[in-house]
Amino acid sequence: MAGSPRRTAGRRLQLPLLCLLLQGATAILFAVFVRYNHETDAALWHWHNHSNADNEFYFRYPSFQDVHTMIFVGFGFLMVFLQRYGFSSVGFTFLSAAFALQWSTLVQGFFHSFHHGHIHVGVESMIDADFCAGAVLISFGAILGKTGPAQLLLMALLEVVLFGLNEFVLLSLLRVKDAGGSMTIHAFGAYFGLVLSRVLYRPQLEKSKHRQGSVYRSDLFAMIGTIFLWIFWPSFNSAPTTLGDGQHRSALNTYYSLTASTLSTFALSALVGRDGRLDMVHIQNAALAGGVVVGTSAEMMLTPFGALVAGFLAGTVSTLGYKFFTPTLESKLKVQDTCGVHNLHGMPGVLGALLGVLVAGLATHEAYGDGLESVFPLLAKGQRSATSQAMHQLFGLFVTLIFASVGGSLGGLLLRLPFLDSPPDSQCYEDQVYWEVPGEHEDLAQGPLRAEELETQA
Amino acid sequence: MAGSPRRTAGRRLQLPLLCLLLQGATAILFAVFVRYNHETDAALWHWHNHSNADNEFYFRYPSFQDVHTMIFVGFGFLMVFLQRYGFSSVGFTFLSAAFALQWSTLVQGFFHSFHHGHIHVGVESMIDADFCAGAVLISFGAILGKTGPAQLLLMALLEVVLFGLNEFVLLSLLRVKDAGGSMTIHAFGAYFGLVLSRVLYRPQLEKSKHRQGSVYRSDLFAMIGTIFLWIFWPSFNSAPTTLGDGQHRSALNTYYSLTASTLSTFALSALVGRDGRLDMVHIQNAALAGGVVVGTSAEMMLTPFGALVAGFLAGTVSTLGYKFFTPTLESKLKVQDTCGVHNLHGMPGVLGALLGVLVAGLATHEAYGDGLESVFPLLAKGQRSATSQAMHQLFGLFVTLIFASVGGSLGGLLLRLPFLDSPPDSQCYEDQVYWEVPGEHEDLAQGPLRAEELETQA
Amino acid sequence: MAGSPRRTAGRRLQLPLLCLLLQGATAILFAVFVRYNHETDAALWHWHNHSNADNEFYFRYPSFQDVHTMIFVGFGFLMVFLQRYGFSSVGFTFLSAAFALQWSTLVQGFFHSFHHGHIHVGVESMIDADFCAGAVLISFGAILGKTGPAQLLLMALLEVVLFGLNEFVLLSLLRVKDAGGSMTIHAFGAYFGLVLSRVLYRPQLEKSKHRQGSVYRSDLFAMIGTIFLWIFWPSFNSAPTTLGDGQHRSALNTYYSLTASTLSTFALSALVGRDGRLDMVHIQNAALAGGVVVGTSAEMMLTPFGALVAGFLAGTVSTLGYKFFTPTLESKLKVQDTCGVHNLHGMPGVLGALLGVLVAGLATHEAYGDGLESVFPLLAKGQRSATSQAMHQLFGLFVTLIFASVGGSLGGLLLRLPFLDSPPDSQCYEDQVYWEVPGEHEDLAQGPLRAEELETQA
Repeated sequence: MAGSPRRTAGRRLQLPLLCLLLQGATAILFAVFVRYNHETDAALWHWHNHSNADNEFYFRYPSFQDVHTMIFVGFGFLMVFLQRYGFSSVGFTFLSAAFALQWSTLVQGFFHSFHHGHIHVGVESMIDADFCAGAVLISFGAILGKTGPAQLLLMALLEVVLFGLNEFVLLSLLRVKDAGGSMTIHAFGAYFGLVLSRVLYRPQLEKSKHRQGSVYRSDLFAMIGTIFLWIFWPSFNSAPTTLGDGQHRSALNTYYSLTASTLSTFALSALVGRDGRLDMVHIQNAALAGGVVVGTSAEMMLTPFGALVAGFLAGTVSTLGYKFFTPTLESKLKVQDTCGVHNLHGMPGVLGALLGVLVAGLATHEAYGDGLESVFPLLAKGQRSATSQAMHQLFGLFVTLIFASVGGSLGGLLLRLPFLDSPPDSQCYEDQVYWEVPGEHEDLAQGPLRAEELETQA
Repeated sequence: MAGSPRRTAGRRLQLPLLCLLLQGATAILFAVFVRYNHETDAALWHWHNHSNADNEFYFRYPSFQDVHTMIFVGFGFLMVFLQRYGFSSVGFTFLSAAFALQWSTLVQGFFHSFHHGHIHVGVESMIDADFCAGAVLISFGAILGKTGPAQLLLMALLEVVLFGLNEFVLLSLLRVKDAGGSMTIHAFGAYFGLVLSRVLYRPQLEKSKHRQGSVYRSDLFAMIGTIFLWIFWPSFNSAPTTLGDGQHRSALNTYYSLTASTLSTFALSALVGRDGRLDMVHIQNAALAGGVVVGTSAEMMLTPFGALVAGFLAGTVSTLGYKFFTPTLESKLKVQDTCGVHNLHGMPGVLGALLGVLVAGLATHEAYGDGLESVFPLLAKGQRSATSQAMHQLFGLFVTLIFASVGGSLGGLLLRLPFLDSPPDSQCYEDQVYWEVPGEHEDLAQGPLRAEELETQA
Repeated sequence: MAGSPRRTAGRRLQLPLLCLLLQGATAILFAVFVRYNHETDAALWHWHNHSNADNEFYFRYPSFQDVHTMIFVGFGFLMVFLQRYGFSSVGFTFLSAAFALQWSTLVQGFFHSFHHGHIHVGVESMIDADFCAGAVLISFGAILGKTGPAQLLLMALLEVVLFGLNEFVLLSLLRVKDAGGSMTIHAFGAYFGLVLSRVLYRPQLEKSKHRQGSVYRSDLFAMIGTIFLWIFWPSFNSAPTTLGDGQHRSALNTYYSLTASTLSTFALSALVGRDGRLDMVHIQNAALAGGVVVGTSAEMMLTPFGALVAGFLAGTVSTLGYKFFTPTLESKLKVQDTCGVHNLHGMPGVLGALLGVLVAGLATHEAYGDGLESVFPLLAKGQRSATSQAMHQLFGLFVTLIFASVGGSLGGLLLRLPFLDSPPDSQCYEDQVYWEVPGEHEDLAQGPLRAEELETQA
């Protein structure tokens, strides 16, 4: 490793310069390309006499706010479980998601709403950008504690592009359905992060082992993240679907699926735990797998029963993954997955994609009626059979895994660039590397007044 | 008590088996009975040409999400005040509410939306199920720390049925108004839990006394619960009311009532406190009584002034209850009420029911105009006088107290079944009985790097 | 200072009496003046056949709830960073905001919706009252830890009146635009609080210096506040704007501005930090400056690019303010600004007002089309030129600064009344002065069971 003075100077400048550079670049691109869309532009909206009640804002903004809460509160606090990495978990989530929102507005805009040389933005692009930020944060979960903020920004820079490209291939070329992103967000983000973590493999990571666990307090903070993710996941899966029954059904299915994954997580956690004790890591994570697993199929006619079964399976697979697969992942495959994103997003994401294959393959005109048009337009127009749609869905999963793996590999090589500031093995999972941490843990020894003292002074 | 090996094996299997059994049963019942309703089914919604803007989703989903937040974040964290029971408070809230949502969908569905052999679900059933989960969590508050998760699931199994039955008698048979559930949720949940706690009375509970209090950190976590309950209570009381002015007025009344209960709680807490000091328990709980007390009357023409007076009284009664009544409840009536649900939900719930009697009795055609139809349909049709409606409201409270008492007694007997895993008196309020708790409270002694060390390594 | 017994008796009664007095007064004024408005009154709403979907509730209530969350969760927890003042930060926020909501309903009602002798209330007045509470909490931030709750209530009593008056002069007389309140909320609240803090200057405050900092845990709690403020700020700036494109555009602009202020805050914090380390205080506060700076212009045709630039500048100015200006403020100007409200609300508020001057001055019929009517009605009617509107905006800032300074001075004199209970210099930033604080910080030494003990007992 480089000597102290140079390293410190490098660290001092790397993050600020990268932030300023990226912000400058996106600002220029915004100036050139980004414009208000029909619903946010004063002149365009008033061009014809619209009823204000028809503005997309009223149909999607409440869902957007729930998604926004999930990204910044949910993901941010979910990762706070590490005892000495709370500032970084919530802070770097904040930083990399904020950048991803800007950058993704541009990338997704080029792919989805580029007309007459301009990208048009409104509440839908806000939701889409938050979704992309979600994928970035999933990948972040795999490498949490082992990378610096400059590295994370570079990862976001690359991942947002590949996310946009993958999403474009799936949604626009293959015409695959994936509203809640089992494939485009969860599987993509997880395998991107896992492959990247493999490339960054640290054989000496046990030097930081004592900081890798949680403490009582940090686990409670993490539950803030879990619960906010859990309650708003119905909004996540329904935010971008077709209006009316589509949004309504997506929310309902997700709600049921999550209740089932919660029950199966508690069951399995106690079953495999020492003396039947529950493991907080399982509850914090696997209980959410029900949201991931219906990401593709929630807007379809999954039925409430189907949602329960899907959620139950996802919670089971995810809990067993934490117990049995994560250790193997590190020891055999050399993938160090800090937050267990393989269990929460990887396997449930793949499962969700396969569930989407199944439910799409079972779609009939009878079950969807005139609503088939909005869920499966190509089926309604007779351009595709249900089986063909199912095959496209399956191919979509395949494409996603390719993009994620190649992207993760590239990302890993990028982040290994030697001049990038990366924490040494003995300083992983440690806030003090990047933050001014309050000197004393608690000043209570000297801080609080003794009762007598207080009385006397008063 | 049973010896170690059998007990441990029992504990090990009791929770998983019960979770799996209950999940299996509800899944089968879902398969047989639960169907999408008109607003969530693709075929039904598109059968006639609806405007998507008319979908119930857009009128109730934002309120649903607020209610959902209250149930899982609000109730969950409100109970985190115990210093050593944070995992259980938020975890068992999570588990029992998740099960209650499924089970209540079935029970309430049978009573309220069972047509042609099927239960039809959508955002209204989602709100209703959350309300029922709220009642279960209120009861949980009375026995917090003294029961295991399997016992809680059994309690939910019973309580959801009785909740549904009581609600059916009140809303459908007696045609009582109770949108925000002063009776059906708060009084029912509180007295069910209190009677149940009486049956489970533990004379030796002082063995766990040292764990029964809060610490600084746990009180701050609990304030997260309080504040989220407080801010979203207007959505709670308005979520199921008639659209338009009904929802709007319910939210407004609740908002004012809560401001008044906050002021009276601070006033009374300082007045009765040692040296005029505030007690965090009062602030955490009694400040919320303003939401409970207008649960019945918020949708009526209570007037903003009426809301202030109601809230003020509720905050006062609740604070005085914590100070003077809770100790008596334990010493004289042998009711050990961990969270003081009698003060937050019991007395304010009864007060709210009586306020509903009063405001219903004062209803006139003049005050409600053509809006009388939606608030008091029987009055509008001339089938009932205002006095008669008031008497029905009063009888509704009576019925609720009967159902709650009988239900709580049955619940207590059920939970005393000897094979159920219940914590011994010396291990109440202790997470370690059910959870893997991180070994060290803080690894900070060895964890953080000393400044010199950091500099050297860097 | 007064001797112990009298002081204690005074403290004991001061807060309760003031709460009861204020609550009594507002209740009487509510009885006399406050009535449901057209949208919340059963008779009025049903007078003509309205579609329930047209009720203002559905257009503004979700935004209201986001604002409500910001006021109580956001501001409350943002101030929890002090290690020994968490109860007071979140508790006094709760108390003073609850009172401000009632009192502001009356004051703003007199100025804005007083018709036929009555104030008419609904979701818009709820939003307005929350905004006013926001200004009070900003001022609270300047004096946090140095005043008692009775003093805070008196400050709110005065500030709410001056807020209403200033807002009336700006919005109704000068016809200035300021939807998100860069002037009326942020600049007003900040300079009111700063001038007040100047009048209350404590030269001996270093006696409490050891309690003035944060600890690890308290900084994480504060991040809860930061993140909720950050995610919901788009709702804050859009809550009171015109429906349709106005709300939509305001939310979009704020969203982008916040991402930019986040990037610039991280950049600048690392740049000016020791060894390139980030300072949590900057992240907690300056990252929010992007919301403040577009408070006036977010509803205008600022363009997404303009939002990025504005946010970037605000984050930069705010971070540099924390680093370099706050110390000077205390040493040279004798203004002790506990939360650094000058950096988060003061300078960005003024900057936001000036940005509003600029964007208003650039308004053209071409850019706004028929939407000009809703953003700048006087321009659309030809009663004012864009330059004239810009000059009015500038004059509005001037008026605001006058009102804030005079008001803050008066407030300072009021709070210095000798009989008011104020903490001595050595007991600032200390909860124990006002709260029963749990005796032990952690009972963990005796609390948790040792593993062997647990096994044996089980």
